[in-house]
Amino acid sequence: MSQNFPAMKNDLLLRAAKGEKVERVPVWVMRQAGRYLPEFRAVREKHDFFTVCRTPELACEVTLQPLRRFKLDAAIIFSDILVIPQALGMEVLMVPGKGPTFPQPLKSPEDMERLNHNPDVHKELGYVFDALTLTRTKLEGQVPLIGFSGAPWTLMAYMVEGGGSSTYSKPRSWLYKSPNESKKLLTLLTDTIIEYLIGQVEAGAQLLQLFDSHAGVLDRELFLEFALPYLVKIVDKVKSGLREKGIDPVPMTVFAKGAHYAIEDMAKTNYDIIGLDWTMDALHARQISNAHGKTLQGNLDPAALYAPVEQIAEATKSMIAKFGTKSYIANLGHGMYPDMSPDHLEVFVDSVHKYSQS
Amino acid sequence: MSQNFPAMKNDLLLRAAKGEKVERVPVWVMRQAGRYLPEFRAVREKHDFFTVCRTPELACEVTLQPLRRFKLDAAIIFSDILVIPQALGMEVLMVPGKGPTFPQPLKSPEDMERLNHNPDVHKELGYVFDALTLTRTKLEGQVPLIGFSGAPWTLMAYMVEGGGSSTYSKPRSWLYKSPNESKKLLTLLTDTIIEYLIGQVEAGAQLLQLFDSHAGVLDRELFLEFALPYLVKIVDKVKSGLREKGIDPVPMTVFAKGAHYAIEDMAKTNYDIIGLDWTMDALHARQISNAHGKTLQGNLDPAALYAPVEQIAEATKSMIAKFGTKSYIANLGHGMYPDMSPDHLEVFVDSVHKYSQS
Repeated sequence: MSQNFPAMKNDLLLRAAKGEKVERVPVWVMRQAGRYLPEFRAVREKHDFFTVCRTPELACEVTLQPLRRFKLDAAIIFSDILVIPQALGMEVLMVPGKGPTFPQPLKSPEDMERLNHNPDVHKELGYVFDALTLTRTKLEGQVPLIGFSGAPWTLMAYMVEGGGSSTYSKPRSWLYKSPNESKKLLTLLTDTIIEYLIGQVEAGAQLLQLFDSHAGVLDRELFLEFALPYLVKIVDKVKSGLREKGIDPVPMTVFAKGAHYAIEDMAKTNYDIIGLDWTMDALHARQISNAHGKTLQGNLDPAALYAPVEQIAEATKSMIAKFGTKSYIANLGHGMYPDMSPDHLEVFVDSVHKYSQS
Repeated sequence: MSQNFPAMKNDLLLRAAKGEKVERVPVWVMRQAGRYLPEFRAVREKHDFFTVCRTPELACEVTLQPLRRFKLDAAIIFSDILVIPQALGMEVLMVPGKGPTFPQPLKSPEDMERLNHNPDVHKELGYVFDALTLTRTKLEGQVPLIGFSGAPWTLMAYMVEGGGSSTYSKPRSWLYKSPNESKKLLTLLTDTIIEYLIGQVEAGAQLLQLFDSHAGVLDRELFLEFALPYLVKIVDKVKSGLREKGIDPVPMTVFAKGAHYAIEDMAKTNYDIIGLDWTMDALHARQISNAHGKTLQGNLDPAALYAPVEQIAEATKSMIAKFGTKSYIANLGHGMYPDMSPDHLEVFVDSVHKYSQS
């Protein structure tokens, strides 16, 4: 339980999440542990992707790698959103150059019978909990540790489509052809995610982020019917479930990539932090978040890290000027790309330090 | 020249484009000629994709196929946005299950030397002009004929990335690393597109649509620097170029998929019609378009055609109620998917007829 972990030396992230006063804007970066780091590639040369996820020592090692280089204000546990479909009995392969691939996707609602409808989350995903506990201990209170999960719609989209897609037309067809069966699948995912996230906090996670990576292929109407209610159930049940166990709820972030049409809808939920992709307007989002007492996270165009370093510093300064230093967590608007330079990420992180002293 | 073509029997599209009064909202559908039609698949079984594009009789035949089934108010010439990179000397293969692929993408700005910087558009793309003239003649004035082009940023994105991508991180890196070289490439594309579109109108096209399919990976700042100025140059130069030739300019549509952040910016240009993808809010877009005297086009979620037919009719009715019947062209928010039912498209088209009599 969290009370046995080392005392926090830097809790900027947790205070910003709650809208409390901070001396400086906290910064972390999506996919800060990843292939752009040579030390990560060295680990991956010896171990395949899911072996790293499933081996607490390896997951811990790659989680800590970016902390050794950059003045980051959070660690995020190295894992993958597709561990949930795996826990439900689906095979997922990480195919080089193609990304995640399901050899046997759900071709029709009848295929849902193949799923494990009563997964033992602690048995199937205990390796994530072990990795969190080990990492939280090894962090020695240096920075908070973030846990995460894929959101129900995004996981359903992968499970039905069978991998990445520019349209996700197959899972979208389910929403129209088989709305009730879709909701059964989303409910199974939701209930599994709730148990998974409560377990993550018990294991040491201090903030939780939901990744709804495929929200952008939905319109607002579908998002309000097939994505948001499940996100709401998750935040509400995770927080109440923790309280019932006598554990203080942790701040929770919803990051629905592409859901430009639903920023206000998300601001009305019990999520503490709204993550913004790089296409979202900071000033507009700030108006909404202020009205609802939310913290914002984001949203520099990740591709801006390809720019010359002076330009990265300028862009970071300009981003902070738009968001302000209160109720704000600096981040990119999406994850790092594998061909990016660690030196350029360092300029981003250092620029947040430089330009956000309040 | 257009004056020799058969007189128009149905000019609803052209009147709606100009904001004139119409008896009924015109309707056409992106990718209305395509694999979802068995008669299209029959042609494709005998001829590969680019052979159909390059053979005026085949392009004309597949352009007319959907008109024989549905009460559509426009034909759109069967072609592909990647004919422009081909005209600049790049090889493009249509790989089944993968989509368009460039065996030799532009790996660095130096690779631009490989391009043909003075393409003879009439020689390289004369087959499109021939297809337009043949189709315009064969249409016998039944409905207007739409021509189109990919927009400069979208074509650059394909040429640099080498095919489809969920991030387009390579072309986005050019915008930050090599902005001047990027602008040279965008200018070459723009100048070629201008000549191409003027040629299309001379050959019989009565409305032109620009597809900026990858606008959604840009933020507003990049869109305003690397996409919009080229779109503006195109609309302005195509219209003035036609006037100089003594030809009446045709209405022009800009469809920047994912550019939710730039609807107002586009409304301030000389495009007549703003195409909306299915994630865009109709009421918000209508406020903007009314303020700038523009026509809107869109935007039913294409996946809605997977729904039961009664639901398609309801969704179409609701869409028209939001957009209103003036200055409006009914369409999907993106193209047809190959596994869709022609019968379901028919319900969409018929529902526009039924619910939009003014």
